[in-house]
Amino acid sequence: MLFKFLVSYEDALKLILENVKPVEQREKVGIEELVGRVLAEDVQANIFVPPFDRAAMDGYAVKAEDTYGATSTKPKVLRLVGVLSAGKRADKVVGKGECVEVATGSPIPAGADAVVMLEFTEKVGEEVHVFKPVYPGANISPVGEDIRRGEIVLKDGEFLTPAKIGVLASLGRREAYVYRKPRIAIVPTGAEVKEPGSRLGEGEIYDVNSYTLISVLSQNGAIPVRFPPAPDVFDELGKLVKILVKEYDMVVFSGGSSVGEYDLLAQVVEKFGRILFHGVQIKPGKPTLFGLVDGKPIFGMPGYPTSCLSNAYLLLIPAVRKMARLPPKPKKVVKAKISQRVVLGSGRAQFLTVKIEGDKAIPVFKESGAITSMANADGYIFLPTNLDVLEAGEEVEVTLLE
Amino acid sequence: MLFKFLVSYEDALKLILENVKPVEQREKVGIEELVGRVLAEDVQANIFVPPFDRAAMDGYAVKAEDTYGATSTKPKVLRLVGVLSAGKRADKVVGKGECVEVATGSPIPAGADAVVMLEFTEKVGEEVHVFKPVYPGANISPVGEDIRRGEIVLKDGEFLTPAKIGVLASLGRREAYVYRKPRIAIVPTGAEVKEPGSRLGEGEIYDVNSYTLISVLSQNGAIPVRFPPAPDVFDELGKLVKILVKEYDMVVFSGGSSVGEYDLLAQVVEKFGRILFHGVQIKPGKPTLFGLVDGKPIFGMPGYPTSCLSNAYLLLIPAVRKMARLPPKPKKVVKAKISQRVVLGSGRAQFLTVKIEGDKAIPVFKESGAITSMANADGYIFLPTNLDVLEAGEEVEVTLLE
Repeated sequence: MLFKFLVSYEDALKLILENVKPVEQREKVGIEELVGRVLAEDVQANIFVPPFDRAAMDGYAVKAEDTYGATSTKPKVLRLVGVLSAGKRADKVVGKGECVEVATGSPIPAGADAVVMLEFTEKVGEEVHVFKPVYPGANISPVGEDIRRGEIVLKDGEFLTPAKIGVLASLGRREAYVYRKPRIAIVPTGAEVKEPGSRLGEGEIYDVNSYTLISVLSQNGAIPVRFPPAPDVFDELGKLVKILVKEYDMVVFSGGSSVGEYDLLAQVVEKFGRILFHGVQIKPGKPTLFGLVDGKPIFGMPGYPTSCLSNAYLLLIPAVRKMARLPPKPKKVVKAKISQRVVLGSGRAQFLTVKIEGDKAIPVFKESGAITSMANADGYIFLPTNLDVLEAGEEVEVTLLE
Repeated sequence: MLFKFLVSYEDALKLILENVKPVEQREKVGIEELVGRVLAEDVQANIFVPPFDRAAMDGYAVKAEDTYGATSTKPKVLRLVGVLSAGKRADKVVGKGECVEVATGSPIPAGADAVVMLEFTEKVGEEVHVFKPVYPGANISPVGEDIRRGEIVLKDGEFLTPAKIGVLASLGRREAYVYRKPRIAIVPTGAEVKEPGSRLGEGEIYDVNSYTLISVLSQNGAIPVRFPPAPDVFDELGKLVKILVKEYDMVVFSGGSSVGEYDLLAQVVEKFGRILFHGVQIKPGKPTLFGLVDGKPIFGMPGYPTSCLSNAYLLLIPAVRKMARLPPKPKKVVKAKISQRVVLGSGRAQFLTVKIEGDKAIPVFKESGAITSMANADGYIFLPTNLDVLEAGEEVEVTLLE
């Protein structure tokens, strides 16, 4: 198969990232659903956190100076004038020689400037014996210690982790604006490809690529929508592409295995838009197309299931995450020694699936069509273009498949 | 605060994992929603994959022996008797000296035993010139090459990656049985804690812990359900716990900050079930409770937001993932040098939040109550019990927060 716009893997990735635009639209989402989303607003604190001086320990709110000089044998004796629990209004006042019992989280009553921890006290009737002095401010979380009113606590574009959702909750936010997820149309190609659940006729096989792509895309912040198989007539395919780029953020053709199907999609993209590459120097996965129609990215993925999926990992995920404004996918990597010599085609990057046994990485690639070879792999080694051979026993980084 | 059932972090984790049971019930889920779930059936192939001998390349289906001796200057000449595209029935027969044009994916017609790639041929009228011999079987994916009918291709308990979903699709499966997600009740404690969105009265703060827990639990294969704040009366709390353990797989009290609240939950668990630990030698996060009521795990998390969240990472995630039958969470770890000396309390594990700058890990812990200290951290260092001090410049592993 001849490719007019053949590029290296590195250039393919560069072209993709230069031409994919992050989504601009935002949506309001409830706090229970925010984890893993990308914030689309600056969050300014409208309250102090904590909103008042709080007891950081169970004990007695006191005037610190009343405790100076206390020892385990010569306690200071204070008069208990009230009890405050968490969630209550601090309606007591602590005068000289007095104290108020407080629980962790309760407000500090007026007049008090420190909390003596329970374990350094003894209650004797209406009196409290204090066995250790405290300094002013001891065991108090002062108002605004964590967040000051007016402060920008989270910024537009931040990835929402559980802790950041905690920050939103601490300000009383029930919802927040986040960037909407990119919507991606998946269109199977190939007259032989049938939807799972249907009955296979002679010469037909089930559609694998649409479902591996749906899985990968939904794991990476997108909303994939599967369409019926693409028409194999130029005008109809052209019409479909023009409609899909209006409604979706990206269109992914989930693999045409023969030259004819490829040519057709390439012709359509060339006529209605622009081909950025067609053919990548990578093994497997060479027959991959990327272009723009009306500014929207179009992917033509390879037809072989393993090639389609490996290029989903290497090319599609970076595209989708940029679109979704997600940080690059953190890789889960283990180090291992390659079990056998691997010779690479010159000038071609390689995606090599492996099983891990002990400290060994064992190549498990069967052939491009075999989805099981990838299903049974623990991970993959990505070998860049500038490498010719990997000697047996060399240390490699295996990215775990998940 | 005194703890009757104080344990080390290592023992706490062991007790949790010994007492949490994986869910048994399964549910049927559509193939588009299967990624990240855990298979609850053995999947046996009911068809061969591919279901027939397929062309692995575009070219001509031939009898291999007809091509023997072909060279670039002395081609073998075959008679073209038909064209077969993918998805069509192989209704042609290839006789001696004949060939049929095939596309990648099309069935191999009867009589043919190899495919000559398009680039080694030339079509001249109704004749095809073959410039290179092929061996029998060349460029053919034989029936069952990837999967044989009757084979068990996926096993009960397997974690469903995109490639494994591809295997299900290749067999025509529209859905599969997976283990249902554990349902986890989250109950806030503390009279001062109010739901975000409501108006704070004096002495009140917003509930942070329920929302960080909801986020962590939903990221780890569970369905969290938040309840109104727990009653602070023994009988009512007991009644609530008895109801919740009937309906849910686990009950998590999302943090009571004062001794009183702790005692109450501990008393209830002790009366209606069994306390397995109450207090963990870890900083922060000591006031953590774990027990069983009617066989269902009950967690009492610390009240301080950072302690609650750090123990969610260290104790709750392993529990929930075991329950959901998920593999241990793969950690995303980076190596860095600690920027300052850290002295650890003897016999206490420590969870230390850090920011990463260049190759340095800089501790950012403010105080247990400050959710912002965790929200602004890049990750954490977990320091086990048997460590007393970390010298400045020592290499540490930072687990990234996500």
